Amino acid sequence: MAQRRRASHQRHDQRHDPRQPGAREHREAAPIATKSTQFVYGRHAVTAALGNPLRVVLRLFCLRENIEEAALLLAEARVAERPSRPEPIERRALEMLLPPDAVHQGLALEAKPLAAPALEDVLAALPREGEPHILLLLDQVTDPHNVGAILRSAAAFAALAVIVPEHGAPPVTGALAKAASGALETVPLIRVTNLARTIERLKTEGFWCVGLDSDAPESLTAIELPARIALALGAEGAGLRRLVRKQCDYLARLPVRGALHSLNVSNAAAVALYAITQRSK
Amino acid sequence: MAQRRRASHQRHDQRHDPRQPGAREHREAAPIATKSTQFVYGRHAVTAALGNPLRVVLRLFCLRENIEEAALLLAEARVAERPSRPEPIERRALEMLLPPDAVHQGLALEAKPLAAPALEDVLAALPREGEPHILLLLDQVTDPHNVGAILRSAAAFAALAVIVPEHGAPPVTGALAKAASGALETVPLIRVTNLARTIERLKTEGFWCVGLDSDAPESLTAIELPARIALALGAEGAGLRRLVRKQCDYLARLPVRGALHSLNVSNAAAVALYAITQRSK
Repeated sequence: MAQRRRASHQRHDQRHDPRQPGAREHREAAPIATKSTQFVYGRHAVTAALGNPLRVVLRLFCLRENIEEAALLLAEARVAERPSRPEPIERRALEMLLPPDAVHQGLALEAKPLAAPALEDVLAALPREGEPHILLLLDQVTDPHNVGAILRSAAAFAALAVIVPEHGAPPVTGALAKAASGALETVPLIRVTNLARTIERLKTEGFWCVGLDSDAPESLTAIELPARIALALGAEGAGLRRLVRKQCDYLARLPVRGALHSLNVSNAAAVALYAITQRSK
Repeated sequence: MAQRRRASHQRHDQRHDPRQPGAREHREAAPIATKSTQFVYGRHAVTAALGNPLRVVLRLFCLRENIEEAALLLAEARVAERPSRPEPIERRALEMLLPPDAVHQGLALEAKPLAAPALEDVLAALPREGEPHILLLLDQVTDPHNVGAILRSAAAFAALAVIVPEHGAPPVTGALAKAASGALETVPLIRVTNLARTIERLKTEGFWCVGLDSDAPESLTAIELPARIALALGAEGAGLRRLVRKQCDYLARLPVRGALHSLNVSNAAAVALYAITQRSK
């Protein structure tokens, strides 16, 4: 309870601080990838990319045994631009295009990277009332498999977006897209210059920031959750950085009962999303 | 509801089938690793291995900057056998011992593989009454990172053990141990020859088998859960195999509400463990 009171108090101060920066300072967004094209591979990821009207697809490669499937996917594609036909390719040549041990399932496409989504676009599209809204903030989560799995959980639990800092987050590689299993096409992965300032901005939109911390005295299920939640997760081991932690209205731990008190970060995100969405029913 | 009735009925039949095999047929367990030693690396995994009385540790390698930490860990070790002192090693030489891109944090040890735990040992140690018990069964989950993360969640949610088939599960590599972040030392990873027959055996000990299936009509939160649960998860995409699915008393989906209906398998396991442990409170 002490934690909760202190956090509310802190929040109150921030709300009335005339030095609080306005929305304009948060509009900039970094480019998602520095390379001019990216490869997306694996059945789910390729299908989802081809279903995304924002995608510009340059080439679709497939193994000979996947040629019919690839042609069908291309015919049903809803992308902005697409090639006229899939290109059959030898297994060895396909594997040369992709990271080592990539599970491509005979399908890979080359596309322009998605335009970097901006936080303000997501906030502008928020309905005033209704369903609870969850944003995920990842502080220095650098493993692309974890970020991909978290995007996937965000899609499954209808989170609005995943927000990462410009520095201290993995680039959008094929490995990340594969781990996201299509979710990269539906959940905005937003890069911001400063996570702590982004939380301040979110507070002005009615979001309350909940930081996951395995040492927090209160469990996530013990706090009374507001409708708009910004859920912040730190790197495994290090946890949330000081300035991000300071912006949290609540610090809470996951209610785990076993010997180890810390989960893999993507597992922790999934459990937290589940716990939050269950409670808001 | 139809699903539930059918499953209970099926279960009833099995309970009274005189052909049901006895416990003896399930005693065999496969060796965990074929190599005579294994490397465990990363701070959490190394610390946990050194705290495990069942471990025979042959050598402890460390970077020069980690020599004090390594000496302290060794002094506090509770292993069956240990080396007299840590061995400082150059970064390049350490990396040669480990998989590419291994996050070793300056620490790695060479140990004999743990003896393969047997299902019957776990069952023999079960108290008759009290806390709910959860076993996890993984059907063809082949990614060592996923199996490692699931072991970690099993530890966090006090599951009894993780059971995998002899064929169709990854060997216990350093990558798996690292992903498990120490949980390999506390949660038995049991290999069985036949997962479907293992479920039959578990039923005779009062376990009810719940198979996760994203297409199941009923949600995990809608079924009345028994105290002893064997939770079965299949490979992503393929799901549970027919013979395993047939042995399940219940098929249930996770209650997800977003666009994608399937989570990464380790995320699904974590959410299911959380949902089950929350409900049994």
